[in-house]
Amino acid sequence: MTDERIWTAALVVIGDEILSGRTQDKNIAQLATWLNVQGIRLVEVRVVPDREAAIVEAVNTLRARNDYLFTTGGIGPTHDDITVDAIAAALGVPVVEHPDALAVLERHYETRGGLTDARRRMARVPAGATLIENRVSGAPGIRVGNIFIMAGVPHITAGMLDWLTGTLEGGRPVVSATIGCWVAESEVAELLRATEKAHEGVAIGSYPFFRDGRTGANFVVRSPDAALVDRCIADLTAALEADGREVTAEGI
Amino acid sequence: MTDERIWTAALVVIGDEILSGRTQDKNIAQLATWLNVQGIRLVEVRVVPDREAAIVEAVNTLRARNDYLFTTGGIGPTHDDITVDAIAAALGVPVVEHPDALAVLERHYETRGGLTDARRRMARVPAGATLIENRVSGAPGIRVGNIFIMAGVPHITAGMLDWLTGTLEGGRPVVSATIGCWVAESEVAELLRATEKAHEGVAIGSYPFFRDGRTGANFVVRSPDAALVDRCIADLTAALEADGREVTAEGI
Repeated sequence: MTDERIWTAALVVIGDEILSGRTQDKNIAQLATWLNVQGIRLVEVRVVPDREAAIVEAVNTLRARNDYLFTTGGIGPTHDDITVDAIAAALGVPVVEHPDALAVLERHYETRGGLTDARRRMARVPAGATLIENRVSGAPGIRVGNIFIMAGVPHITAGMLDWLTGTLEGGRPVVSATIGCWVAESEVAELLRATEKAHEGVAIGSYPFFRDGRTGANFVVRSPDAALVDRCIADLTAALEADGREVTAEGI
Repeated sequence: MTDERIWTAALVVIGDEILSGRTQDKNIAQLATWLNVQGIRLVEVRVVPDREAAIVEAVNTLRARNDYLFTTGGIGPTHDDITVDAIAAALGVPVVEHPDALAVLERHYETRGGLTDARRRMARVPAGATLIENRVSGAPGIRVGNIFIMAGVPHITAGMLDWLTGTLEGGRPVVSATIGCWVAESEVAELLRATEKAHEGVAIGSYPFFRDGRTGANFVVRSPDAALVDRCIADLTAALEADGREVTAEGI
């Protein structure tokens, strides 16, 4: 179990609009959920502004220590879209026009006013890149080495992830199961700690909430070993019930 | 203008639940918006797992290069709440029990079953810390040096930010204004670039969307200089209208 290879990914969210609070990020949760199914663990996220030096630092640090690096944002046609140039700079390669991307854009804009200079910028990629199909709008995503350059708009990135499904090598997906209790987590903290310790290879997360005037918590058990998750959930449920708590399967 | 001191902040979001996709982060946007009003710019965010080494690395990098560092998450009573210990390790100071925090918790739990060992853990702080009032639930936030340790639950952090309002030194708040157009951003990319260039000290962001079967974009002009923002918005509006576009004030 503990010798099992863990495949990891990081994400760099690129965009002043996230750091200014104007836009609520949706890509972290979306990518995390998708990666889980691929058997890849999202282990770090950084949000950086539309500034080349910041993007280069984040990309170079995270691509070196993870199997995969994803970026979202900054691949459109306007002056604030600098992701491709920044990643090329990080890799020390030139930016080139990708002929297939150009063909995709020519086709896409044929009935939409034609390929302007600004639109043609979206065919630019770091040298050595391949394309990620964009089924939603025109401009494709880009893969270069272990870096996957995705759109900022969540439903466009969803389409790109869908196209990538099953193509990345990963390990066993992390399985999780949840139970809930109308209890203050502090009342069962020791019980949670002991249960986690008794099941090596699981992580138990405790997520308190306050709803309808009552205090409750959900307990999430995670592991790549589904049988171990089941055993841990059964033991945790039994321990809570022995402590006089009513347990809700699947969480509250 | 360009010599103006810019006050910066970073945020470390701590929690496996964000990296697993289970929980949608709300604290980035909430903190960003609050910081803007304080005249402080959020310039980098990292999301890290509930693992001490990862927290220490992020905290030490970001506290050194920013005026302020905020963390959210991991300050509850359960075994997965390791933020206080990790930040004390990052600072190289011991963890101590804060007498005022203990008094707050004793009072809070007086009518809620009393202060258990698990609950008492929430009185632990890195040595040298002061408290941030928590008006919503029991356990206070913590300030130590330029680090502000906040809750993971967004409405609890909201209350802590409210309590901190006006207490942090900052510069001029960044002012922003938005206009919208039913246009593909790629059709006006050159116009946006030229307008930004003509107004030194502003950043223009372009945020495309697809709604009701139509393509549009909002253009956001940002600067600490409110008069400059107004001039830039006026000039951008005039340029778009001269280009035959209908402009919606305040954005679409």
